Amino acid sequence: MLAKLELWIEYEQEEKLTYNISSLMHGILMEQLDPIYGEVLHRNGQKPFHQSVSEMRNNHFKWTICTLNVEARKQIIDVLVTKKHFYMKHKDLKLKVTKWNLSGSSYDELIEKYYFQKNARNIPIRFVTPTAFKSNGGYVFMPDVHFIFQSLINKYNAFASDTSVEGQEILEHFEKYALIQRYKLKSVRYALEGVWISAFIGEIVIHINGPEQMVNLAHMLIAFGEYAGIGIKSSLGMGDVEKGEKKTDDR
Amino acid sequence: MLAKLELWIEYEQEEKLTYNISSLMHGILMEQLDPIYGEVLHRNGQKPFHQSVSEMRNNHFKWTICTLNVEARKQIIDVLVTKKHFYMKHKDLKLKVTKWNLSGSSYDELIEKYYFQKNARNIPIRFVTPTAFKSNGGYVFMPDVHFIFQSLINKYNAFASDTSVEGQEILEHFEKYALIQRYKLKSVRYALEGVWISAFIGEIVIHINGPEQMVNLAHMLIAFGEYAGIGIKSSLGMGDVEKGEKKTDDR
Repeated sequence: MLAKLELWIEYEQEEKLTYNISSLMHGILMEQLDPIYGEVLHRNGQKPFHQSVSEMRNNHFKWTICTLNVEARKQIIDVLVTKKHFYMKHKDLKLKVTKWNLSGSSYDELIEKYYFQKNARNIPIRFVTPTAFKSNGGYVFMPDVHFIFQSLINKYNAFASDTSVEGQEILEHFEKYALIQRYKLKSVRYALEGVWISAFIGEIVIHINGPEQMVNLAHMLIAFGEYAGIGIKSSLGMGDVEKGEKKTDDR
Repeated sequence: MLAKLELWIEYEQEEKLTYNISSLMHGILMEQLDPIYGEVLHRNGQKPFHQSVSEMRNNHFKWTICTLNVEARKQIIDVLVTKKHFYMKHKDLKLKVTKWNLSGSSYDELIEKYYFQKNARNIPIRFVTPTAFKSNGGYVFMPDVHFIFQSLINKYNAFASDTSVEGQEILEHFEKYALIQRYKLKSVRYALEGVWISAFIGEIVIHINGPEQMVNLAHMLIAFGEYAGIGIKSSLGMGDVEKGEKKTDDR
């Protein structure tokens, strides 16, 4: 069960809030939860949710929270959707919900959507919020087929209850068949809990060679990535992605 | 001996010429040369010159030719500098030289400039024309410390007569001590002799850790790169770079 809650939020302050409030929003989210569930989240490595902020305008922004299994949907989204106000202690700021939207998909629906139709071999991905990967104890802030699919497969297998993707083998197939065909990217430094992380934002187009099943699986995983985020610290606002839907290949 | 000839060129045509005329300019250059020297160039792998076009405006552009040894200077630049007109057969277009500038440096001067002063550990590089590398028979169109310094060291050792850089060992040092710290890049497709090559343009900042000699060597090699170009097909207009000169590190 994948669910997405979008909250449009208004605030009164001269200074415009920036993307860097994501970790404060994470704090606000955690405050709303049953402490026992908060403890469960705290203990686990892979978090069953992804949250980020976007549309940063004067006095309003959008807060998006996605959950990746039934329990997270119940414990997080079903709680947040009832709230009309939040309080950002750090900035002594009242946040008012002016509009909300709830949408979702089952894992089966996601699979059906992409497995049983012919999909384009070119898949555009837009990295909306700063994205990075971890490798050998360091951060990687340039996208790469290996890291993108590794992240998606790990998250998918952690939360898709009835289905799973054969991790290592499929990852090797992607390394063989997938390539970044075009890109427009820049590095950014992202403030997270007082630490600056090097990350990137921008756009790439992934091209999938090989059997059509690989094309379909890539589409499915990247569509899952719209809920799960890609890369590190997606519960803290990083790794928000949008999948471009192209009907035809412009090769 | 490093030399750079800049020619400002005027033409009469409704349609503005684009960066993609570089290979036509290569053809024009070759036509001016002593056929025996042309044969020599044709036989050799690493070309002792780099040429590219820039400042593409209505009715004029700049053509830059750099040579990397004394013979190339004599055979190419000393010939081109006397010409007031060129003819672009492919487009039936007369090209008129309106201004020229000749500059240069000896390899010793280049070494002195960077070896005996304290240089910044951050080195900005702007990739002005499409740049790419070759690896395992394929093209690489994302910059990488390994490919950048490998290309520079190979070109340097091919043409710097009295000095050379210990290739493999130094390259391993750069792989250990150099990293891309920031970037803003996009992929482009570049038309070369009827073939589309995937390449990139944009900016990076390379940061050099480790001993100061590595910092100085990196500066020297990248300054050499302003003459030699970086990566493949620099005689055909690719791989033109500009080195940013930063007095202090903004770390």
